[in-house]
Amino acid sequence: MNTFDFTLPTKFYVGYGQLEKLKEIAGEYGKKAMICAAKDTMRQLGFLDRVKTLLEAAGVEVAVIDDVEPNPRDIDIDRQVEYFQSEGCDFTIGLGGGSALDTAKAIAFLAAQNGGSVRDYLAGGKKSDLADVKQPYPVICITTTAGTGSEATKWFVVTNTINHDKPGVGHDLLMPSVSIVDPELMMSLPAQITRSCGIDVLFHAMEAYIATCANPFTDALALEAIRLVMKYLGRAIENGKEDKEAREYMAWANTMGGIVIGEGNSGTVAIHALGHSIGGQTNAPHGLTMCPLAVPYIEKTWDADEEKYAALTRAFGYGDDSMSEHELAAMCPQAMKGVLQKFGCDITMRDLGVTEDMIEPMTDSVFKTMAGVLNNSLKKFDREDVIELYKKAM
Amino acid sequence: MNTFDFTLPTKFYVGYGQLEKLKEIAGEYGKKAMICAAKDTMRQLGFLDRVKTLLEAAGVEVAVIDDVEPNPRDIDIDRQVEYFQSEGCDFTIGLGGGSALDTAKAIAFLAAQNGGSVRDYLAGGKKSDLADVKQPYPVICITTTAGTGSEATKWFVVTNTINHDKPGVGHDLLMPSVSIVDPELMMSLPAQITRSCGIDVLFHAMEAYIATCANPFTDALALEAIRLVMKYLGRAIENGKEDKEAREYMAWANTMGGIVIGEGNSGTVAIHALGHSIGGQTNAPHGLTMCPLAVPYIEKTWDADEEKYAALTRAFGYGDDSMSEHELAAMCPQAMKGVLQKFGCDITMRDLGVTEDMIEPMTDSVFKTMAGVLNNSLKKFDREDVIELYKKAM
Repeated sequence: MNTFDFTLPTKFYVGYGQLEKLKEIAGEYGKKAMICAAKDTMRQLGFLDRVKTLLEAAGVEVAVIDDVEPNPRDIDIDRQVEYFQSEGCDFTIGLGGGSALDTAKAIAFLAAQNGGSVRDYLAGGKKSDLADVKQPYPVICITTTAGTGSEATKWFVVTNTINHDKPGVGHDLLMPSVSIVDPELMMSLPAQITRSCGIDVLFHAMEAYIATCANPFTDALALEAIRLVMKYLGRAIENGKEDKEAREYMAWANTMGGIVIGEGNSGTVAIHALGHSIGGQTNAPHGLTMCPLAVPYIEKTWDADEEKYAALTRAFGYGDDSMSEHELAAMCPQAMKGVLQKFGCDITMRDLGVTEDMIEPMTDSVFKTMAGVLNNSLKKFDREDVIELYKKAM
Repeated sequence: MNTFDFTLPTKFYVGYGQLEKLKEIAGEYGKKAMICAAKDTMRQLGFLDRVKTLLEAAGVEVAVIDDVEPNPRDIDIDRQVEYFQSEGCDFTIGLGGGSALDTAKAIAFLAAQNGGSVRDYLAGGKKSDLADVKQPYPVICITTTAGTGSEATKWFVVTNTINHDKPGVGHDLLMPSVSIVDPELMMSLPAQITRSCGIDVLFHAMEAYIATCANPFTDALALEAIRLVMKYLGRAIENGKEDKEAREYMAWANTMGGIVIGEGNSGTVAIHALGHSIGGQTNAPHGLTMCPLAVPYIEKTWDADEEKYAALTRAFGYGDDSMSEHELAAMCPQAMKGVLQKFGCDITMRDLGVTEDMIEPMTDSVFKTMAGVLNNSLKKFDREDVIELYKKAM
């Protein structure tokens, strides 16, 4: 069994009304905050004004970046860091989905490193070993989606505009200081985004459950997160503007899934490793990029740990107590297919805009940027295995 | 649903071989450590020497207290703090079960507070509001039992030798800096202690699951801890010197149960509140003091949340899928009784040395020292309810 080294430095506030805590705590992190807000929506929904008002009530000055787009790019981060420094900010606040949170983390990180481009720290860059990095500025994550888990992890993901890689940068010092997961901020999320974020929660939990780095702590949280997604994601997609309970449980599932791949120190597997490279090539919503890969991945790996895949099948709502563990595990690809259909996520890579000629560069990118994640898989994936998986997912 | 405010500052090392980590990390906490070791056993088992050797390898000087007895007393803590100060120590290391860990926490706390007795900070004492307490010295917990959860909580429990109360002192600053949960240190634990500690793990998890302050994060970990205890505690009691797997899973159950009542911010209920006062009067092993109370408590409360009590019944291995939630919940007292019998813990308060005349002072003590815990119960407990529960448990 894996040993377990973890600390969870992030202070979490989960539940309705928790956004208000900002007023009490923001002052601890400095005198001036830079809000990194998802483009358009945060302003339109009034969230940007609410956060500004809470910060001002806390005696904190505010600078704002409100043009964060999906899949943040290296050139944007570099530009935003200049603004952070020229404004003399003390900490960042990510407000939005994973892109806003990752932007807040990336700015807080790069601004503390004495110059250079964030590209230097991406896979293949000259400082990508992250040796001797300095303590980043504090980060407060306010997530408005149930997805990504960025508020619970030491990772940010940035697209390299030169080579289209979409690598994750991870360092213990990148854990957010505070994360606020208030389902009220998720009530107005459109069905499509609820779907693509919610399915990402499912992948975080299920991949971490069948990863080589899983442990009993992460297993308990991962299985519960899967059960919550199975029970509440459909409701959140269909009636997310009304169904407060579904939003609340999805907020919890997101938090647990994030902790599992964050400070719980389990991680995702080949599904995420290959999915990231789809995102780098196509700009498809992150959550959807894993969907085409899930069934072929499970077809390849289900016999590597039958106890766990059997439990997954059951958590997906398939099988019954009369079946043997072996039978349940063998049923897992079919169960996964059913889950994707249930949530309207049974798609191919072609649906996401991938063409055959992208498979080679995507495969290169997997080994360059996501080799660590790939190696969390219960079976070994060499280059041919990755290409085969991509082809099956087309 | 409860909102959820938590941070887990403790760095955990769980698993075989993790004691060795001490060599790498101890130097971060200062130049001189005071080891607070459980009396006799830690020396006899060679654990004290191993820890000293690891500290010396880390360049850390060592002072030793190795006379920590079960249920630490105020007068002992006061004496040990003098020794800590005269030796110029920088941090404490608890080595043993809950009493050693609590002693390490209490010393690190009191030594930082400018004089006075630890009794000042116990319930009813002149500083028991814990206002303006100073940052305690760092604490490293090395637990040699699977029980108590002290390595994951902000609590220490000290017996007041004047009035026989056994209150817990809790403060956010009392979280250990590091906790090492290495099952190898538990292999030689005698069956009786394995039993009384292991049943405490069960109570932490099950009480926190049915507490008013439960949340989905703690529910997931609590249920998993219960399942692990049901599966492995019997094996650890019967064959604990050989069964490495059982010891390992009990170490995990202990860690999860501790997190649930620690930084997960759920808590125990009337069972622990009343159990503590038994411990204050009789010096009975802490884990056993809850056993007589469990069935009467569940008889009184099972209809307060049938969904949860039904899940408890199932986690205890009782009932089947054909039963309704109501039927399963109503079965919970019987299931609890069966669990206690299974682990040789089906005892009365009289078995622990309680006499009728102790019930009044024990009841006084519950309201004085454990009112907060009592109020975590799903039903209200007034004085008559507490007396009635004690009488049923005689």
